[in-house]
Parts: sequence; structure tokens; C-alpha cells
Amino acid sequence: MRIAVDAMGGDHAPAHVVEGAVLAARQLGLGLLLVGRREAIERELGRLAGPEPLDLRIVEAPAVIGMADPPTRVLRSGRGASIRVAVDAVARGEAEAVFSAGQTGATVLAAQAVFGMLPGVDRPALATTIPTSRGRAVLLDSGATVDCRPAHLVQFAAMGCAYARIHARGPAPRVGLLSIGEEAAKGNELTRDAYRLLEASGLNFVGSVEARDLFTGLADVIVCDGFTGNVALKVGEGLVDAIERELRGELSRTVAGRTAAWLSRTAFRRLRSRVDYAESGAAPLLGVAGLCLVGHGRSSARAVRNGLAAAARLVRDGCRDRVAEEIAAVTVPY
Amino acid sequence: MRIAVDAMGGDHAPAHVVEGAVLAARQLGLGLLLVGRREAIERELGRLAGPEPLDLRIVEAPAVIGMADPPTRVLRSGRGASIRVAVDAVARGEAEAVFSAGQTGATVLAAQAVFGMLPGVDRPALATTIPTSRGRAVLLDSGATVDCRPAHLVQFAAMGCAYARIHARGPAPRVGLLSIGEEAAKGNELTRDAYRLLEASGLNFVGSVEARDLFTGLADVIVCDGFTGNVALKVGEGLVDAIERELRGELSRTVAGRTAAWLSRTAFRRLRSRVDYAESGAAPLLGVAGLCLVGHGRSSARAVRNGLAAAARLVRDGCRDRVAEEIAAVTVPY
Repeated sequence: MRIAVDAMGGDHAPAHVVEGAVLAARQLGLGLLLVGRREAIERELGRLAGPEPLDLRIVEAPAVIGMADPPTRVLRSGRGASIRVAVDAVARGEAEAVFSAGQTGATVLAAQAVFGMLPGVDRPALATTIPTSRGRAVLLDSGATVDCRPAHLVQFAAMGCAYARIHARGPAPRVGLLSIGEEAAKGNELTRDAYRLLEASGLNFVGSVEARDLFTGLADVIVCDGFTGNVALKVGEGLVDAIERELRGELSRTVAGRTAAWLSRTAFRRLRSRVDYAESGAAPLLGVAGLCLVGHGRSSARAVRNGLAAAARLVRDGCRDRVAEEIAAVTVPY
Repeated sequence: MRIAVDAMGGDHAPAHVVEGAVLAARQLGLGLLLVGRREAIERELGRLAGPEPLDLRIVEAPAVIGMADPPTRVLRSGRGASIRVAVDAVARGEAEAVFSAGQTGATVLAAQAVFGMLPGVDRPALATTIPTSRGRAVLLDSGATVDCRPAHLVQFAAMGCAYARIHARGPAPRVGLLSIGEEAAKGNELTRDAYRLLEASGLNFVGSVEARDLFTGLADVIVCDGFTGNVALKVGEGLVDAIERELRGELSRTVAGRTAAWLSRTAFRRLRSRVDYAESGAAPLLGVAGLCLVGHGRSSARAVRNGLAAAARLVRDGCRDRVAEEIAAVTVPY
């Protein structure tokens, strides 16, 4: 198995990305294409290389699409951009999946343009795994398609179910619609219409899930448009940061508090690893006719390594074909 | 000063609402109209009454609009509903403001229908005060207008500035647009168009604010549609609950952890009161031609008391007129 890695994508690229790739090659035995500026990648590899042979190959890509660049650059002048070269390598069969922690918009566009969409899917969706009090749930779309029609949310639901089944065997995943009230009549135009379509979809639709219940495990798959999903996840990220800062501040004020902080440092570390989905690796872009995983822009080497492990798992489990089958089985009105 | 209280609105009504009203009357000397079923209100008052005379008057309203009722009931058959009778009392000049912890949709509709809108405002917005690492910010709309046009967000921004100025004197409040990237080109159709309008509005627009930075104090006023705002706040609520639960679970596993939990209980309580905006009282419904405050459905007696204190402050500070002035001064394209 071989995975193409956009070595230049991410806030800490290429350093963290190359380091994560080396970890994945060393610990998991993965074969990797490192796509980007050869010189920069070789410098990082030189810093990290151990005595053992690793299955790493560099593929030259002269350009990089930065976080502030327009995503459409990947289509026009961006043929030499690392993310584009990495996606092209998968399309040519030189790798089974692509991973990038670079600009989400450009990655989505490149995958859509080069791979094309699966039959029956109009728009792609990023599926992010979130921790709940009962285990895990899949939230999609978390940022690929910001303006959605109601039928898109039904497609997202079917794709999310296929993805959820890869992790957890058992009865049909419970599908929830992220909204601002539990009743069908609440929500905005999009969710009110999507509610009716989901009821008729044949999926195991359990109704609306209020944002307050995102982490309580009321559904296994939670659908929403990509703008709302991205806001929901980012609010969560920001709040975890803010609470940690506040609690540290509160605890440092008294001797008892400082003692408590010292005694609870392990608990904090464990908690952080459970709530910080940024660290959990990468989210697959579902709906495109090729395997593409998007890592967090702030990805550490460990997050990149975890993202590559996730990519390998999805290749082995035939994620793309399962999504295609689930989409074919569901009633999606147009 | 007199405030009309929807005594039947909220998950714990009338018990917590009447108790909060008694606290407000006793501690703040407020005059209150308690609107709802006389018998139920008298029963609560009998339980709470002390020896001192309080300025509380009961206004009979035979009906209640529950959380699951369609909001439009308040317009049709709902003339006898407590929230409607309370709003009508303000319209007749028998009170200066109305407070309800009942169904937000019904409260918004009643206020809109009875008070009408301020000149230059198309849609109302709920303004929720959120804690930031530098102080406070105002997020609006947090749930009154779920489907917005770009011009609505400019109106929300102007109204939010007027409201922010009541709390903090000084230079023009910094206005941010809640979005999923910092660049103007990112976001959805609504935010991309609203970005351009805000730039031309004459307000102190500082650009997009990512959801991750909702609590970092980059802006004093943050605008978004009511669906997104509600999701953002509710995700925050759910996460604070989840983190508290998780951290308690983690800490209870070891002796050191249990000691830490015991030592940090005061810090936890303080933290909760800082991040739990549900407890902070009530959010004003800006844009309507009358003063209306919406409390959280889960409001405790203390939250109701704080909500009534906030209502009294806004009456004294002439909130409605200040909003009208700010709207008149801003460039709002149609």
C-alpha cells in the first residue's frame, strides 16, 4: 500500500508533516510518496533519518498553495502545486490515497476535479469523528460544502452511515440532523426541508439533534451543511483552549489550587487527548471517487502519523466502495 | 419602573420564575407584573413570601405556550397566552419591559407583532453576551432570525454596537463577522456578501472572526444568522457540560485525582459561573420597538433574578432609543 502525502500542506509544513510520515513509515510500515519541494523534504529527512530503510519516495512539486491563496488556484495555475501533484498521483494509480493538512478548500477542489464524484453524489463532505459520552459520532459536512441544498444532507447521511459502519459493526447507524430544536418545524429553511427528506430516505433517522447534544451520543451520524459543521467544531476547539486557560488561571491563585493542578495534570492530559479531535488525525472527504483525507492545519507530527494510519485503514476497508454502495441503496430525491 | 414577567415560561416555570421575581423585587426593589395562571402563581408566592411588602402584581393569563407548541399559536389562538398578555401589558404602557424564559420563537413573534419593528430594521436579533479572555463580547443573532439576508447582518451589527456601548464606553466597538476563515472570500454565500456590506457600513468592521476565536476577544460585537449563532452557543453549553463530566470521571479514578477534585471545587464553581452564559440572565431582543428580554429555558431562580436586573438596566439606559439612533447612523444597503 502507498499513500501520497502533501508534504507542503499545513501550518507546520514540511517539518511536522515529514516527521509524521517518517513515524508512519517506521511504526506502521507504510509506503509513502512525499510530494513537494525536494530540497526542503530532503533537509527534513536528513534530520530524522535512522539506520533502518523506510519506504519513502519524494515526488517533486514546485508550488505550494498557502492558507490565504484562493482555492481555485489548484485548478488554474496550480498544476505544479503539491496537493495537485499528490492527487494526480492517486488518479494515475501510483498511490491508493492522498493526505493533506493544507488548505481544505484547495484539497476539496483538487479531489473533486481530478477524481470526480461518485454516482448519486452531488457534493463532497468532510466526515469528522467527534468524541461523545457513549463513544464516537461522525459529524458531516465539517467544511467541504458550505452552501447546501436539502438533498445534499441526505447524501451526507448515507455516506456518513457507510463510514460509521467501518468503525462499528452492528445495527444501522442512528442518523441525526443538527438543528436548533428537536421538533421538525424548528430550524432554518434547509433543515426543515432536509428533515422531511431524511424521514423518507430509508435511513435510521432519529430526528433533530440540538447542538447542545452534539457530544451526548444521541446519534451515530450527525449531518449539517459545511458552514454550520465547521463553526460547531471550531467553537468546540476554541472552548477547550479557553477552559484550559481559565481553569489553570483559577487554580494558580491559591496553594490548594496549585496542589490540585499538580495532582490533576495527568487527568488534564488524558482529557485533552479525548476532546481534542484536532489530534485524532484526519477526516476523509466522502463522495469523491478517490480516497482523500484532510488533516487539521495545526497538525503535529503525531496527528500526521495518525492521519496516515487512518488513511491506510480506509484503503484496507474499501471505504470508497462502501460509500458508493450505501448511496445506491438510499432514497435521495432530487 | 415595572417589568412584565411571563411567569409560565421556562422548563421550571412557574416555580423558578416566581422565585426569581421575588428575589428581584426584594433585592432590587423592582415592581413586577407576574403574568400567568393566578392560582399557580399564588401558590408559589405563598411558599416564598416573607414579612416585607413587595411590589408584585398578578395579571391573569389562562393559557401557556409550551416548548413544543408552534410559535405561531401566539398570534392566532394565543391571545390568552402568558407571553402574549405580558407583551400586551408593555404595549399598553403598564410595564417598561417584558421578560420570558419560555419558548423563544413565540416570544420573538409576539414582540414583533405587538411592538412592531424599529425604523430601518427588517428582522429582530437576540444579543447574547459571551465571556472572552479579555472581557465580554456580544454575539447576535443567537436565535431570533434563522434565515438571514446579508443586509440583516449589517443591521444586527449596528444594533449590537448600540448594545455594547451601554456596557462599555470608549471607542467604537469592533465588529466581527462569524465565519469559517479569516479571508473575505471564505465562508458561505451569506457571509461573503455580508462581508462587503459591512466594509461599506461605516461601522468599525475588523473582518471575519473564526468560530475558534469566539472566546478570544478579537471583536466586541460578532454577527451571524440566528441558526449559526444558536448552534455556536449550544455547542459551547454542551461542551462545558461534557468537559465537567469527563474531568470529574478522570479525577475520580485515583486518590491523587480525588484529592485534586476536592481541592479544586471552588475553582470549578467560579469557572462554571464564568463560562455558563445560561446563568448570566437574559438576552435582549434587539430591533423591535419595545424592550423584550429572553431568558434561557433552563433558567434557575438566580438566572431569572439576573435577567430582571438586566431588563431594569436596559430600561434605565434607554436601550431601545440607542439602538434606533445607531441604526439611523449606519449605512445599511437594501
